[in-house]
Amino acid sequence: MADEVRFEGLRRAMEKEGLDALVCRLPEHVLMLTGYWPMCAWVYAVFPREAQGVCILPDTEEEEARAGLFRTDCLTYPYGTKDSPPQPESMLRLLKGQARGWKKVGWEESSDVAAPAWNAAELQIPSASSRRLLEQAFGARRLIDASRFLREAQILKTPQEVEGVRKANRIANLGIQEFFRRVAPGAGGVELAAAVEGAIMVQGTGFEGARCVRAFAQVAVGPESARGWRPAEITTSRRLEQGEVALLELAVVADGFWCDRTRARVAGEPTAEQREVHELVRAAQGAAIAAVRPGVEAALADEEARKLIREGGRDREFMHVTGHGLGYRYHEHAPLLAPGSKDVLQPGMIHSVEPGVYGPAFGGIRIEDDVLVTERAAEILAPLSCDLRD
Amino acid sequence: MADEVRFEGLRRAMEKEGLDALVCRLPEHVLMLTGYWPMCAWVYAVFPREAQGVCILPDTEEEEARAGLFRTDCLTYPYGTKDSPPQPESMLRLLKGQARGWKKVGWEESSDVAAPAWNAAELQIPSASSRRLLEQAFGARRLIDASRFLREAQILKTPQEVEGVRKANRIANLGIQEFFRRVAPGAGGVELAAAVEGAIMVQGTGFEGARCVRAFAQVAVGPESARGWRPAEITTSRRLEQGEVALLELAVVADGFWCDRTRARVAGEPTAEQREVHELVRAAQGAAIAAVRPGVEAALADEEARKLIREGGRDREFMHVTGHGLGYRYHEHAPLLAPGSKDVLQPGMIHSVEPGVYGPAFGGIRIEDDVLVTERAAEILAPLSCDLRD
Repeated sequence: MADEVRFEGLRRAMEKEGLDALVCRLPEHVLMLTGYWPMCAWVYAVFPREAQGVCILPDTEEEEARAGLFRTDCLTYPYGTKDSPPQPESMLRLLKGQARGWKKVGWEESSDVAAPAWNAAELQIPSASSRRLLEQAFGARRLIDASRFLREAQILKTPQEVEGVRKANRIANLGIQEFFRRVAPGAGGVELAAAVEGAIMVQGTGFEGARCVRAFAQVAVGPESARGWRPAEITTSRRLEQGEVALLELAVVADGFWCDRTRARVAGEPTAEQREVHELVRAAQGAAIAAVRPGVEAALADEEARKLIREGGRDREFMHVTGHGLGYRYHEHAPLLAPGSKDVLQPGMIHSVEPGVYGPAFGGIRIEDDVLVTERAAEILAPLSCDLRD
Repeated sequence: MADEVRFEGLRRAMEKEGLDALVCRLPEHVLMLTGYWPMCAWVYAVFPREAQGVCILPDTEEEEARAGLFRTDCLTYPYGTKDSPPQPESMLRLLKGQARGWKKVGWEESSDVAAPAWNAAELQIPSASSRRLLEQAFGARRLIDASRFLREAQILKTPQEVEGVRKANRIANLGIQEFFRRVAPGAGGVELAAAVEGAIMVQGTGFEGARCVRAFAQVAVGPESARGWRPAEITTSRRLEQGEVALLELAVVADGFWCDRTRARVAGEPTAEQREVHELVRAAQGAAIAAVRPGVEAALADEEARKLIREGGRDREFMHVTGHGLGYRYHEHAPLLAPGSKDVLQPGMIHSVEPGVYGPAFGGIRIEDDVLVTERAAEILAPLSCDLRD
């Protein structure tokens, strides 16, 4: 998914920082620097400012890598058999072969959040042992902490990267539609979450050519949804009763690009209060999205949503921020749509817009879509109904 | 799931190393040091040698934490609302409050593999910014790299931890049985994987009290299974044809404890060669398990499996190792059941036993179970049929 726009932008930024090369192992950085989202362990992307990049990876995933790599050489080491040499040894040999007397080599020294690779059950992470390896390959005094550089580089997406996040959003819609079909009295939280994840794996694999697709769904049911503003929920076996809310929080990754979506749905007939809250949240989301355009402070978009909810008398029930950046991860650092945020919206940013209102009497209702900041406005990446019921 | 046996063992080992405290944020270490498997971000476990431990975490997950913590205090900071102070600030304040003039504080400086938390879509990892935080809290010269200490501490499981891994294995069986029911001509790889993951989430949540259950299934279908010895597979939409193998590789986590399992199944009637290979693999697994007992070299158990497969003329088709440690992660470093391994089996170790034979003519057939090394032998943690078909 990497592209010439990304590579040129990176090289300009590297020149400004005086960085001669980037050497990264976190899946999101490997993807950005090579176009390949790793299947699992022990991959390094070497991205020099003035030469073609190299992806170093196990020979067991060479075929998959070559399908993803963009203008990047592929170097493999033997892996996965009883006779394979230890990975650090292989990596060191191949990394050393890449050294070109660079003076400043950026790596992920203080990256403290990570998206998983395709095999999300286990992650290889940069650590002091990675540092020792890179020191041996490139020289200790030449290593520079490029974590902030990488984080900032991720903020503006190229058109191709936008398409990657859009595809993840479209695939998410397949799961959300399954959720819509299944919400009814008697449906359990884990059943709904499993149905959403299953629909996304089954229908999403192959969708617009997507190869590696996985969903992480959290479904809060009834009174649980009133706590659904929390950053993570445990999905339980509790079953929906008539008139209760099911709140779906959904991360989807498709070939390394992430989306973050939410829908609320009522089992049976919504109450008057649920309808009122839902209308308020829908209007607040619309107001925030309408405020999004280049040059606008992210705090203003947050305030547009918050103002409406305040006017509806519900501001104490809207505890969280209105949105955050995303795409290379489920959550990125910028832009942050929150009171006091200093971020200014720019074309190419992708962020969530996710106002919500939560109360013990009616549950939790949040509507979350991902939008792209365009040259003039905001574009919802994969529009979909947010009705409380059919 | 932590217990007095674990805590006493850790404190003895800390005394030997001269460690005054451990301060960890990786989910597997937080679990080992406190009994709580974190839901998501920014948790620290502080485990002093001579006082009760403390778990520092977002107030949004206090209730869940208190259900898991064992003889560990709970300190929370405000999180998840628009008004929450930045997490590093909150963490620093609470960590500083724990400092007791310790001379040696162990942390995860060179840990380079990580299991996700419950919210597996994003992981907080130790990095140089974690180091700076801990330096401010405890003093730079007092920080010791305890990664190796922690890794070695994980190798021997306490009886309660064994029960955690056994539960994950029992839950895995629910998914494997779903796989058995579904393998048939026409079934697609992604459909099988989604069905297995769904069955585990739905039937596993609440199973023997499990709260947080998730599966990561990879299903290789037909010719794909011949490459199924690789460390990771992409599950595709390809559908099974009559006589083809479906190979299921399965990680399950239940409240922070992991298992690693594999079954192969034929759609319809197995060929003579498939039956022959399957018998060989089954016998090899049995031979390896029969060799497992305290004091035995892990390489010997590997050789017992390898010898049988060699005698069957298939040694070049059994490329990988026979087994690896697991439990706090999908894969742990020790013991390694492989030629040349220096590991010696000891009671309380848990490892996989997973011989496999792969060839283009018949597919890939691997049988993987997790076993506990007991005082006298090996115990399969959750025995289940490994038949090629019903």
